[in-house]
Amino acid sequence: MPALAIAVDLGGTQIRAALVDEQGEVTRRVAVATASAAGPAAVLEQLGSITSSVCDGVAGDRILGLGICAPGPLDTIRGNALGVPTLAGFVDFPLRRMLEERIGLPVWLENDGVAAAIGEWRFGAGRGWANVVYVTVSTGIGGGVVSDGRVLRGRQGMAGHVGHMTIFANGIACACGNGGCWEVYGSGTAFVRRARARAEADEATSLRRNIVYVDGAAVFAAAANGDALAASLVAEEADILGIGIANLLHLYSPDVVVIGGGMSANFDVLYPGVAARVRSAAMVPFRDTRIVRAELQDNSGLIGAAAIVFDAHRSGGADRPCHLPERRAEHPAAAADAS
Amino acid sequence: MPALAIAVDLGGTQIRAALVDEQGEVTRRVAVATASAAGPAAVLEQLGSITSSVCDGVAGDRILGLGICAPGPLDTIRGNALGVPTLAGFVDFPLRRMLEERIGLPVWLENDGVAAAIGEWRFGAGRGWANVVYVTVSTGIGGGVVSDGRVLRGRQGMAGHVGHMTIFANGIACACGNGGCWEVYGSGTAFVRRARARAEADEATSLRRNIVYVDGAAVFAAAANGDALAASLVAEEADILGIGIANLLHLYSPDVVVIGGGMSANFDVLYPGVAARVRSAAMVPFRDTRIVRAELQDNSGLIGAAAIVFDAHRSGGADRPCHLPERRAEHPAAAADAS
Repeated sequence: MPALAIAVDLGGTQIRAALVDEQGEVTRRVAVATASAAGPAAVLEQLGSITSSVCDGVAGDRILGLGICAPGPLDTIRGNALGVPTLAGFVDFPLRRMLEERIGLPVWLENDGVAAAIGEWRFGAGRGWANVVYVTVSTGIGGGVVSDGRVLRGRQGMAGHVGHMTIFANGIACACGNGGCWEVYGSGTAFVRRARARAEADEATSLRRNIVYVDGAAVFAAAANGDALAASLVAEEADILGIGIANLLHLYSPDVVVIGGGMSANFDVLYPGVAARVRSAAMVPFRDTRIVRAELQDNSGLIGAAAIVFDAHRSGGADRPCHLPERRAEHPAAAADAS
Repeated sequence: MPALAIAVDLGGTQIRAALVDEQGEVTRRVAVATASAAGPAAVLEQLGSITSSVCDGVAGDRILGLGICAPGPLDTIRGNALGVPTLAGFVDFPLRRMLEERIGLPVWLENDGVAAAIGEWRFGAGRGWANVVYVTVSTGIGGGVVSDGRVLRGRQGMAGHVGHMTIFANGIACACGNGGCWEVYGSGTAFVRRARARAEADEATSLRRNIVYVDGAAVFAAAANGDALAASLVAEEADILGIGIANLLHLYSPDVVVIGGGMSANFDVLYPGVAARVRSAAMVPFRDTRIVRAELQDNSGLIGAAAIVFDAHRSGGADRPCHLPERRAEHPAAAADAS
């Protein structure tokens, strides 16, 4: 029987778990509402229970381990949640170790954006490329980076927090505390916020009829029906996404940028505006970089989390990609500062 | 006799060449004015001549090869200059191959910001760390990145063009064609531009006396003497640098950010303002990242270019770090698009 990995996507609203095989096929999937306000002990209990449920009837020796992804910031090197805004009590919480003790299997923890990047790189729209930037545009903006054929991790595994780069300096306040982040301008949440505000002031738009129920899909639908305000909102959203993507080209020089998350449902509508901004904002040698839609839908993270387990197993378990040792302390200043 | 590498820093105004040993010691250094308007053939001639001159009297078998760095964008994978704004005719120019033919030694080509990052990582302020972001703040803003113990290269080796990330969307036009780049707000050039413009409108500032001769050093000197305008210019510059640095923390998660270039002469004066902006703009887990001054002064690039030669030699020459093969084409879409 082929080997399997348990994959878990721990979100603020849902915990999703799946069994995934080495070809990235999701063979079983379950979901529960996250007890997000109840604290780490309750969530651990949920994780144990959903893991048992997804493995029910499967021979234990087929299961190599569990890959779990969650919103950052996480210290994926040590396996700790540093402070997940949507999960009460997940502050400096040793999630990997606690979960290993709970389920008796090796666990790998990864940022959800990075896990989705790995999924798309291995089995989706980034397949075959050495340099992949994945961006999820949804409630927020997250992402992950593969560079020179390796997952970019950085200190504490925190590289790739693309949503919190400032693109409008001193701009609108972001939930992270900064002003002007890409996320607070370009996320699906921001798109809907602008749509509601502008619809209030625009007598001609069809969006006015039911402003409090306006969501992203409604704006795209209105734009498709010729609503001028909706079309301008879509154009503005595409432009904002293009500004951030052009930055990522200069910073990471990917072969391909893969766009996922809820907003990617309308990728084809957004693409011309994104590409136009990239052409004007990126230096010439970067302009021909592919920008494509994610292929694994909402399974990117699960499939990526499982891929981490298989990779670690293939390399003999010694090289846990999420537990890279940090190099330290040859430098006198480093030695003095390290704690 | 210890082995040596020839290192060349090809700039728009100067070509500098040195012999460097494996410990990063510069044992000889020469410089000539670049024939920047005369085209690639003339510059190649200069490179051949400066190389002969720096090697004069040194046994040929001690010299392992030549590392050359130049302003980007370059395709360092293939060894081509893609379009160097300050060097006439360096458009899609096979610099590495032409130079190898000219001097009869193996040549490695690297972006000057990346070479300086390598120099500081191996022998300077980034020594001992696995994750180093180097930023040079000078006429422009450039940089290079070491992540997870490797030099970040990306497609065509173009990763790390940090100066051309947009931080003030739709802002002042940058030489690159975009508006609002970090470079056009934060470079030494931008600092002086602001100083001259504001001094014209400020009757109280000592900078008014001789506006056309105001340079960066004059502003720092005036600030040190209590000039209010100069102090506000320094504070603004530090703030702008902090915005970009906070972005780099989120994007690369370095252990240390190393600041070089002309503006780093006043690192200590700028640091408090930089650190204040980083504290407010970066998410909590990123805020304690070290930000330090470069240690190798204007030798960072030369020493880094030489380190590339020694690295390649140690790995048997097979693994030229600047000639990483690009992974391609397992993916059907990739195969169809590749040309």
